[in-house]
This record gives sequence, C-alpha cells and structure tokens, in this order.
Amino acid sequence: MTRLTLAIDAMGGDFGPCVTVPAVLQALASHSHLIILLVGNPDIITPLLAKADSSVLERLRVIPAESVIASDARPSQAIRNSRGSSMRIALELVKEGQAQACVSAGNTGALMGLAKLLLKPLEGIERPALMTVLPHQQQGKTVVLDLGANVESDSEMLVQFAVMGAVVAEEVLAIAQPRVALLNIGQEETKGLETIRMAAAVLRESPQINYIGYLEGNDLLTGKTDVLVCDGFAGNVTLKTMEGVVRMFLSLLKSSGEGKKRAWWLKWLGRWILKRLTQRFGHLNPDQYNGACLLGLRGTVIKSHGAANQRAFAVAIEQAEQAVRRQVPERIAARLDTVLARSDKA
Amino acid sequence: MTRLTLAIDAMGGDFGPCVTVPAVLQALASHSHLIILLVGNPDIITPLLAKADSSVLERLRVIPAESVIASDARPSQAIRNSRGSSMRIALELVKEGQAQACVSAGNTGALMGLAKLLLKPLEGIERPALMTVLPHQQQGKTVVLDLGANVESDSEMLVQFAVMGAVVAEEVLAIAQPRVALLNIGQEETKGLETIRMAAAVLRESPQINYIGYLEGNDLLTGKTDVLVCDGFAGNVTLKTMEGVVRMFLSLLKSSGEGKKRAWWLKWLGRWILKRLTQRFGHLNPDQYNGACLLGLRGTVIKSHGAANQRAFAVAIEQAEQAVRRQVPERIAARLDTVLARSDKA
Repeated sequence: MTRLTLAIDAMGGDFGPCVTVPAVLQALASHSHLIILLVGNPDIITPLLAKADSSVLERLRVIPAESVIASDARPSQAIRNSRGSSMRIALELVKEGQAQACVSAGNTGALMGLAKLLLKPLEGIERPALMTVLPHQQQGKTVVLDLGANVESDSEMLVQFAVMGAVVAEEVLAIAQPRVALLNIGQEETKGLETIRMAAAVLRESPQINYIGYLEGNDLLTGKTDVLVCDGFAGNVTLKTMEGVVRMFLSLLKSSGEGKKRAWWLKWLGRWILKRLTQRFGHLNPDQYNGACLLGLRGTVIKSHGAANQRAFAVAIEQAEQAVRRQVPERIAARLDTVLARSDKA
Repeated sequence: MTRLTLAIDAMGGDFGPCVTVPAVLQALASHSHLIILLVGNPDIITPLLAKADSSVLERLRVIPAESVIASDARPSQAIRNSRGSSMRIALELVKEGQAQACVSAGNTGALMGLAKLLLKPLEGIERPALMTVLPHQQQGKTVVLDLGANVESDSEMLVQFAVMGAVVAEEVLAIAQPRVALLNIGQEETKGLETIRMAAAVLRESPQINYIGYLEGNDLLTGKTDVLVCDGFAGNVTLKTMEGVVRMFLSLLKSSGEGKKRAWWLKWLGRWILKRLTQRFGHLNPDQYNGACLLGLRGTVIKSHGAANQRAFAVAIEQAEQAVRRQVPERIAARLDTVLARSDKA
C-alpha cells in the first residue's frame, strides 16, 4: 500500500493528548503505511511518547503549535485568533499538501469555519456538512448528514446535502441509485418546517436523486433509506439521542449479568448470552463509528467526538485513512458537476 | 371514586375505530368509575360494540360525527372545515363541560389548533405544548416538552414551556425544585440556536426556575434533569429517535431467543434471561407511555400516537383519566399566576 500522511490535532477534545497520543500510536502500530504529523504542544506530547516503539516513532513527527482553540470558544472569535493553534496548523498541513487529511476532536464550529476558510468548499456547495455512516437493522448502512456543522440550514443547503449524501452512498458504499429521505416530524407532505418542504419540492423534481420522501426519527436505524438528510440541529439531536439510548442499553446489558447470587454455571451462561447480545448491538456503539466526515470541501477533514476515548479516536483516524483511500472529496467533486448542473436545468 | 367522563375521538389515528373502540372497551372494563362519550361514525362504531358486556356498554355513549379530519390535512384548512368532525365534537364536549378531558390520535396540528380555539390557552401562555413523562435510568422520571405541537418556537415560548414543565414536575411528579434544562447541540453557553440562547438568558435570571443549563440528546434518559425543554421539531425528533432505537432493541432481544437449534433447557434459560431484560427495558416501550398531554389549555387534551395500537391507545385514555384526577390544568394555572408574575418583575 502506498504511504499516506495524516495531520492530527493532538490538543482538541475533552482529554487532549491523553487520548489523542495513545490513539495515534495505536493507529501507527496497526497501519504500517501510515505517517502522522502530530500537531500540538511538544512539552505535553513528548512525555507521552516515551514508551513507544521506535518502528512507530519513525513514522511520527511532532509539529509544534503554540495554542489550542477552546471547545467552548465562540467559533467566529476562535477563527480570528486561530493563528498558531493546533487545529489551524493541522488544516494548513492539508492545504499545503503535506498531509492528505486532518483529524480533530476540537470545537466543531471552529473546525467547520477554518476548514471552509483554508480548504475551500467544492464548486456548488455553500456550506460543508458533517456526515456519518450508521449501521442499520437490515445489515446495511445509512449516510446521515448534517450532524451539526450548520445550526440552521436553508432549503438549498438541504438539497446540496442530499446530493453529497447520495454521492457518498453510491461511490463509497456502492449502493446503486441510493434512496434519499428528508428527516421531518411527519410523513405527510404538509408536515414540518418550510425549509424542509421547499427542499422536498426541489428533490422530487431532480431526476438525479432517488428521493423517497420524509422519514421520522424512529426510522433512523430501520434501513428505509440510504441517505437521511437533515439540518445540523436536528441531525445532532437524533444522533446524540441514538447514542444515549444505545449506551444505556449496553450498560444495562453489562450490569444485569453482575451482582446477583447465582450458581456459577447460571452466571456463566447469562454472560455468554449477554455477550452475544452485546456483539449484536455493539455495531451501534458510538465508540465504533466515531468520526464524522466534513463533506463538501476540497480536502478530507474528520471531526471526532469531543468526548472520544482512545479507541474512538483511533476509529476516527481510520476513517480519515479510508476517506483518503476512497478519494471521497474527488469523487464528490466529479459527481457534483454533473448532478448540480443537471438539477439547475431541471 | 367519583365518576369521570372522557370524550374520545373514535375516528382519529392510522387505524380509527378498529383500535380506538376496543381500547375504550378495555378502559371501561378496568375502570368502573369511567364514562366515555365515543365520537364518530355510528355505522362503523356500532358493529364493533356487538360483543361488549352490558356492564360496560351502559357507561358508553356514541356521539355521532359526520366527518373525520384526515391525518395528512393541512391544519389551517382542517380547522376551517372542522365543523361536525369527530375531533371537534370531542373537544366541544370538553368545552361545554359534558366531558372532563378529550383523547384523540388524529392530526396533531389540527388538534393543537382546535384545542387552542375552543378551550383557550391559560393566561400567560402563547401556545400550548405537547408534553410527555419519560422514565429515566435513575428510576425517576423526566418531563419532556414540546414534542411537536409547535414546529417553530421563539424564546418566549421556550420559557413558557419551561415554566409549565416545572409545574408538572413539582405538582404531579412531586419533585421539589425540579431541575430544568434546555435541549441543545452542545453544553457550552455559546452553542446552538439564537432562540435557545435567549431562553437560557431569561431562565438563568428566573428565581422561580431551577435552571441547570443545556443538555444534549444523549442525556434524554440519563436523569440529569427533571424537565427537558425543546422546540417542537427537536422534541419530536428526539422522542421518535428514542422510540425507534428502543423498538429495535426490544425486537432484537425477542428474536435472539428464537430459531437456533439448542437444548431445551438452554432455550428456556435464554428466554428467562431475555424476559428479565425486556422487563427492565420495557418501561421505555412506546406502547407503555403513549399519550402526550397538551399543556397550557383550560382543559385536558391527550394526543395519542397516530400509529397507536389498542394497548397504547388504552394507555392514552388512562393518561387522560390521571390528568383529570390530578387537576393538571388547574394546578398549572394556579402556579403560572405566581411564576410568570414574578418573572415579569425579575
């Protein structure tokens, strides 16, 4: 496999280098073709590298950064003062072609704004969107976007999200004529927000998009659609709600095998059944699909959960690697040209 | 117990009388103090009553209605043409004092509009909100509103929802100084929509409200708050998402006990463990908490899921009965006077 370089914002997220550095070492150990530029404060990062293997360290370079963008900073302000920050330097490395993708667990608004500023949106895209791929009940996958890159979305943005989502479903998940739905609070045409109804009217007339109508939150995991389009607020709410419920179930499953006085073989059997259940539900575990892709840019940017642990951050790094290998931005750009041009004519 | 009369819209919902009539008979059979005015088309309803017990039928009166409001009708249009409809007649029975509460599984927007028109909002309330009480992980309960009565909510409406939710938590769930949170897409003050930030600013300064800040979708069931306030779109999305995930888990739990070739005792044991798990998760089953209360009116109106089955619709009828017994509208009215007056001064 050809070598591949990723720029990682070591300082972002709730835990900073304590999580990002071990995750980076883990990723380097399991992918021998990977090179990582680790951007952050060397005084904090270096001690965390002390015990790492030399075969891993020779593919790691620490790029010093003076500052960190706080996760509670106002994005506009953070962007103004971003020079020298770990997030900005990581994005600049992508811009300059030194890295092929960037991963950060930092301030979502700032990442979105800086990425747009530095990497520029693709032709025809007003604002990038955060996208993730969720496993669903029918053993397939659903592309969901926007997950919070844009707090408010107008109908044109929703249409652009639909196009980008369809391209990802087709080009990356290899789904022919992917079904596209809008998230709404009812399935009837008259339901919901004006922006959603307007986007529906455009999508219904687009021959390029296999638009199937509205879906509600309870269909997030049913596999009724290949692409679920929503504004960033609703997308964030539905994803986080799903995560919360899944985490609750997994923790209940785990705890229900413990504590009670029972024969050893009963306990053993209970654990065995619960393990099988956990395996079955585990693919919905937030730790296993962490990493939302910022779509619509001329480069690959992966946003990890702020609260990601080492395992989850390592998953985000792998997502970046895969997005680069699958040439997501290039494919979207190529398809957007055709789709948007034709829908303009329609 | 004193007698209590409910007006039921027999025609609303996806299944109409096929679900509502058996649910009404079930409710009458289990609550001997209940009298029901069943509003709808007698030609459809009467055959469904053929096998009912006479002790039940003597507490049931069919009130004829000429029309039904379609669930996909535009609310404004539906309200204009509502005269003679089962939903409107049921609400009029409450208005005239012939029934103490109304239950409908029909068009949410029309129910909201008609209820506001006929029963009038309480002093100080701009628009009523749909509220439900969800069980949470800490064995307690969380009041969640608005669930979709209002597609868009301004900051004043969010504050009013907070006040109403706090009153329900205090007066009905008996929680002293209930914690109130706003649903948002981040916990930092700068996050989310302008309307939410403005509502937060008002709530932070209200001595009457124990405002604790923003919560995200993943905290819907964690019990971190007693009242979760959101606009109707986000509320609907979070509730429906939760329902979808819970349904998926319950169905997976159920199906994972079947099919495989195993020794009978292993199967039996597996089923036993799964049954315990289902019991544990079952309190989140949408069929068991169906029925959102339309808060902020001078009367009790319960909105059932459109897709409710017999069991779920019976739960909605019980909710109506409890709301009447607990005098929810009267208590909210009494508390609103004090709370809103004081927060006006603040």
